[in-house]
Amino acid sequence: MNKIEHIGIAVKDLEKSNALFAALFGKSHYKIEEVASEGVKTSFFKSGPNKIELLEATKPDSPIAKFIEKKGEGIHHIAFAVNDIKEEVMRLKNEGFIVLNETPKKGADNKLVVFLHPKSTNGVLIELCQDISVNSE
Amino acid sequence: MNKIEHIGIAVKDLEKSNALFAALFGKSHYKIEEVASEGVKTSFFKSGPNKIELLEATKPDSPIAKFIEKKGEGIHHIAFAVNDIKEEVMRLKNEGFIVLNETPKKGADNKLVVFLHPKSTNGVLIELCQDISVNSE
Repeated sequence: MNKIEHIGIAVKDLEKSNALFAALFGKSHYKIEEVASEGVKTSFFKSGPNKIELLEATKPDSPIAKFIEKKGEGIHHIAFAVNDIKEEVMRLKNEGFIVLNETPKKGADNKLVVFLHPKSTNGVLIELCQDISVNSE
Repeated sequence: MNKIEHIGIAVKDLEKSNALFAALFGKSHYKIEEVASEGVKTSFFKSGPNKIELLEATKPDSPIAKFIEKKGEGIHHIAFAVNDIKEEVMRLKNEGFIVLNETPKKGADNKLVVFLHPKSTNGVLIELCQDISVNSE
């Protein structure tokens, strides 16, 4: 795992949170992207080599809506950048981690993503992500 | 804010979690450090330019013990590296963020640290940290 690619933060109101995080970082988000398959609208901020991804639910049954209902707004997941997501998934499965989706799926910001179940990672939802343009099939 | 310096993860059993995160990253932690004033024992892993800090309570009334009691194991805070922590605290106060300790205190891994109240940051406990050796008084 090369670095923390981003931290995902569940928010109720993307517009309000965009203003809040712009004040925090002293600069605006650099993109908004909707991932219809996941029922989320995302907004990205840069912090040096890392990103912050704000996540707002676009439908009541989306994972982010359920997360906020249960836990309130806050940190939802950590994403680590990997070079070869399939190889990492194999390695982590062999180590005993529970992989939520073995077949990488398309996430926001031009990534292939796989999630590990928080039960196997100390309560932390971990995402692996690989740049689609760099190393995809 | 220059980058995500580290993510703090609250754990019940540091030894167990050290083994788990070593399996996740494919390498061991690089240091263990106790911060008696905060009632925590910490363990650090590197992930490229970023770190993961595991936090185990060393006494029942430590903030980490209370966090786990309330929310279970999981992500506790995000720390951002800053060059001048006093300047950043002034800027963020002026932006309306609630600063938990205005006078920077000594944290783990040779840092001066200040925390922002999650109430003012979308439920996310944010730490600012400045390297003591680089830019301290």
